[in-house]
Amino acid sequence: MPANHHYVPHPVSEDARSALLAELAAILPAEALRVDEEDTRPYECDGLTAYRQLPLAVALPADEAQVVAVLKACHRHCVPVVARGAGTGLSGGATPVTDGVVLSLAKFMRIIEIDAAARTARVQPGVRNLAISEAAAPYGLYYAPDPSSQLACTIGGNVAENSGGVHCLKYGLTVHNVLALRVALIDGAVLDIGTAAPDAPGYDLLALLIGSEGMLGVVLEATVKLTPKPQMAQVVMASFADVVHAADAVAAIIAAGIIPAGLEMMDREATAAVEDFVHAGYDLQAAAILLAESDGTPAEVAAEIAAMCALLEKAGASQLRISRDEAERLKFWAGRKAAFPAVGRITPDYLCMDGTIPRKHLARVLTRIAELSREYGLRCANVFHAGDGNLHPLIMFDANVPDELRCATEFGGRILELSVEVGGTITGEHGVGIEKVRQMCVQFSADELAAFHALKAAFDPQRLLNPGKAVPTPRHCSEYRLTGSARGLPPA
Amino acid sequence: MPANHHYVPHPVSEDARSALLAELAAILPAEALRVDEEDTRPYECDGLTAYRQLPLAVALPADEAQVVAVLKACHRHCVPVVARGAGTGLSGGATPVTDGVVLSLAKFMRIIEIDAAARTARVQPGVRNLAISEAAAPYGLYYAPDPSSQLACTIGGNVAENSGGVHCLKYGLTVHNVLALRVALIDGAVLDIGTAAPDAPGYDLLALLIGSEGMLGVVLEATVKLTPKPQMAQVVMASFADVVHAADAVAAIIAAGIIPAGLEMMDREATAAVEDFVHAGYDLQAAAILLAESDGTPAEVAAEIAAMCALLEKAGASQLRISRDEAERLKFWAGRKAAFPAVGRITPDYLCMDGTIPRKHLARVLTRIAELSREYGLRCANVFHAGDGNLHPLIMFDANVPDELRCATEFGGRILELSVEVGGTITGEHGVGIEKVRQMCVQFSADELAAFHALKAAFDPQRLLNPGKAVPTPRHCSEYRLTGSARGLPPA
Repeated sequence: MPANHHYVPHPVSEDARSALLAELAAILPAEALRVDEEDTRPYECDGLTAYRQLPLAVALPADEAQVVAVLKACHRHCVPVVARGAGTGLSGGATPVTDGVVLSLAKFMRIIEIDAAARTARVQPGVRNLAISEAAAPYGLYYAPDPSSQLACTIGGNVAENSGGVHCLKYGLTVHNVLALRVALIDGAVLDIGTAAPDAPGYDLLALLIGSEGMLGVVLEATVKLTPKPQMAQVVMASFADVVHAADAVAAIIAAGIIPAGLEMMDREATAAVEDFVHAGYDLQAAAILLAESDGTPAEVAAEIAAMCALLEKAGASQLRISRDEAERLKFWAGRKAAFPAVGRITPDYLCMDGTIPRKHLARVLTRIAELSREYGLRCANVFHAGDGNLHPLIMFDANVPDELRCATEFGGRILELSVEVGGTITGEHGVGIEKVRQMCVQFSADELAAFHALKAAFDPQRLLNPGKAVPTPRHCSEYRLTGSARGLPPA
Repeated sequence: MPANHHYVPHPVSEDARSALLAELAAILPAEALRVDEEDTRPYECDGLTAYRQLPLAVALPADEAQVVAVLKACHRHCVPVVARGAGTGLSGGATPVTDGVVLSLAKFMRIIEIDAAARTARVQPGVRNLAISEAAAPYGLYYAPDPSSQLACTIGGNVAENSGGVHCLKYGLTVHNVLALRVALIDGAVLDIGTAAPDAPGYDLLALLIGSEGMLGVVLEATVKLTPKPQMAQVVMASFADVVHAADAVAAIIAAGIIPAGLEMMDREATAAVEDFVHAGYDLQAAAILLAESDGTPAEVAAEIAAMCALLEKAGASQLRISRDEAERLKFWAGRKAAFPAVGRITPDYLCMDGTIPRKHLARVLTRIAELSREYGLRCANVFHAGDGNLHPLIMFDANVPDELRCATEFGGRILELSVEVGGTITGEHGVGIEKVRQMCVQFSADELAAFHALKAAFDPQRLLNPGKAVPTPRHCSEYRLTGSARGLPPA
C-alpha cells in the first residue's frame, strides 16, 4: 500500500532534485549516498510493512558535520528528510516520503562515555538499546526501558517514539530515562538540551523532543540514566478462567500500592501462538495469564511476591507459578517478548495496535474487542502492559485476501477510538506515525491540533522533517470527521 | 527596586487601558476587579520581595468562562497578563508588569474529584499543595511533591515553576506527578493536555507547559498522581566536621544504588539559624549535617537505614542519630523545612539561590561559595537537596545598607554561573522568573534561546503572557555578555 495516504507531498522540481543530489554527493563519500532503486529498496518501510515508499535517496552520514550539511542542503532545496534508526518502529515513523531523503543514523554506533559514579551513559543515536545495558553491565548498571525490539532498535529511535517496554511501569518510559540530548534542527542549528542535573531552566525542550517522532529535530547524541541492577527478580505467572478476573487482579495489585517491576497480560490467542513457538510453559487452559514481576533485595522480593500471590488468589487465579530460578524467570518472559513474532508465524500479516486505557476499563474494553473480532471475522490476540493499561491487540489478516487489510485497519481504528472514548489514548509507546494519524482527529480538538502545528512551525516552518506523520492537517480531520468514525472509511 | 529591569513594556495607550478596564468591569463583579492602589498593592510582588511593581489591575475570576473572557479582552487590547497563585514563588514569576493585569486564580479552590482506585486527584489551580494530601489522606494516599511552602503554595504555581521539595529525589518533581492539565491560551482557546493514561500522542505539551512559568498558558485544572503513603519512614541525621566529607557521603549513598526518600544537607550557618528558631536538636558542633530518609515497609526501612549508616560512618560522620519515632522524625525535618524563615530572622534580607550541580562537584562548589562569601563580606547559609545536587545558598544582606543588594545579587549570579561551569543549571525548582533571567544568557547558546523564543511565539506571538520573565531577549544577552560575567554589572 502506498504510504502517506493523507500527505500531499512537497512539490520538488527536477532541478531541485538534481541540485540536491549533486550537493549530497559532495558532502558524502560514494558508499554513503544511495540513489539506485536496489540500494534504496531496503529503506522503503519500517516495522509497519503494510506501507512502502521509495525515497529519493538514502544518506548515511558518519559524523555530525555530515548530518548538519545534509540537513542544510535539504533545507535549502526544500526537500523532506526522514531520520531513521534501525527501522523497527511499528507505526511508520520512519516510512520514507515521496521525493524525500532518508537520513540513516546507522553509523552513529559509538558509546562515548559510561560514568558509573553519576550513573549516566553518553551515546550516539545509532547505538542499540541493549548495547547500552551490555556496556553498563560491568558496573552493575543497565538502561531500564526495554522495548521488545531492544536487541535491534536504537536509542535515537527510542527517543523519537518515547519507547517503553515491559518494565516501564516501574522504571518509566524513555522520557523518564534520558537526561540530555544533542539535536540538529532542519536548518542545521545544533542544540544541547537538558543536563545531567535534575532539572533545566527554560521550556522543557527535552520532553518536547522525546516522542516527537522525528518531526522537530535529529538526535546527534543522548545522555541516558543508568539504573542499578536489582539484586534479584522473580515473576509470578497466574492463570485466569476469564479476562475479567485477570483485569480485576491487575486493579487489585495497583490499588494495594504495589508497583511491580512488570505486570503483563496475555489472552489465550496469544499464549497459544507463543507456546508453539518458544515453549515458555504457559497454561493453555487459561483464558488469560498474568505475569507479575518483583525486583529488589531478596527480602523485598519475597514480601512483594507473597503480597501479589495473595491478591491474585483473591481475584480468582486458578493457578499460580512462581519462577524458581533466573532461567525460569527468563523463560516466562521469553514468551511475552516473542509474542509478536509468534503471532507472525500463524498469520500472513498482522496489525499491532497500541491504545492505552484507564486500568478500570480493562475488562470492558477486552470484551468489546472480542465482539469486534467476531464482527470483522478477524482473529485478534491480546498482549499487553496491563499495569499501564497499554493494550497491544494483534489483529491477524491476510493482505492477499481482497478487503482484509481494509477490514483490519478499520477494526484497529475502532479499538483506538474505543480507547479514547473510555478516557485513554491512541498510543502508549509505538507512536502515531502514519498508522494512527486519523485517530489523532478523534483524540484532539481543533485547538489542540492547532497548538501542535504552531509548535511544529516554531522548529520547522516548511514542514520538511518527517512530513505527513503524527499530526493530521485540519483538512484531513474535517474529511475524517465527516465520515463519523473509523467505520465508513475507504482504505487508509 | 523596580521589577523587570530588562523588560521593555508593551506600550499600552490610555485609550486601550480604559477600554480594557471597562470590559473587565463588564466581565467581573465589582469585588473581583481591583484597580485602586490600596487594592493592588498586596499584589506588587511575590516571594522575591526585592522587586515590586504595581499592576494596572488585578482580576479575580471565579470560573473558567471569566478567565477566558479576561484573557480574550487583554489579548484584544494587547495588554500583558501575569497569572498568580499564592505568590510564594522565589524568582519573581508572579511579579506584575507595568500596565499589565494580574490574573489571580485564588478563587479556584475546589478539589473536583479524588479517584482512589486510579490514584488521581482532579483539582482547580488555586488548591493548596498540602490540601491535596489532606483530601487524599483518608484513602492512604498523598500528593508527593512537597515544596517547603506547601502549606500556602498552590498547584497552579507548582505547575508553573515545576516545583520539587525534599522528597523529590525519590518521588520526582511536579512534572513527574501531573497527569493532565486543562489550560487557557492567551487567545482564550482551552486545551486539554495529557491524560490519566500513561502516555499521550502528539508533542508533549504537558511537559512543555509544566515549568513554563506562566508564559504559555493559564492552568484551569490539573489531574495529579496520588502516591500510597509508605508504611513508615525514618531519618538518620549525620554530623560532619567539614562539608567535603558530607559531600562524599552523599556521593557514596547514591553510588551504592540507594534512592533515599530525602537526602538533605545544611551547613553550620544554616543549622545555627534553625536551632535558635525551632529547636530541632541539630548538632551545632558539626560543620555540616546530612538528613537521609528511608521510607517503605519496616523491613525495607530497617535495611536501608542500616546501609546508609554504614556508608555515612565510612565517609567520616562524627555522630549519627536515627529518629526514634514519628514525632522525632518530624522534628528533624521541621528544622530543614523552616530553614528559610529561620535565616529570615537573623538578617534583614536574603536572596535564595537555586543552582543545581552534578553531585561529584558538591565539595568544590561549596568551597568556592565560602570564598565568595568572604570576598563579598556577606554571610551565606547553605541548605540543599544534596541528593539532587540542588543548592539553596541563602545570601544574607541588608537592603538599607547602600550597595548590599547589588553585592548580594552579584554574589548570587556568580554562584549560578559557577553551577553552569561545572555542568549544572541555574535553577532546580524555583524557576528563572526575573531573578535569574541574566544567567540564562550563560546557560544557553543563541540558537537555544532562539528555540525558546520560537516556541513562545507559537503560543503567544504578541508576548502578552508574563512578558519579560524567564527567557532573555538576544539584545539583553549581548549586553550582558559584553560585561563578561555577573561581576561588573550595574544593579539588576
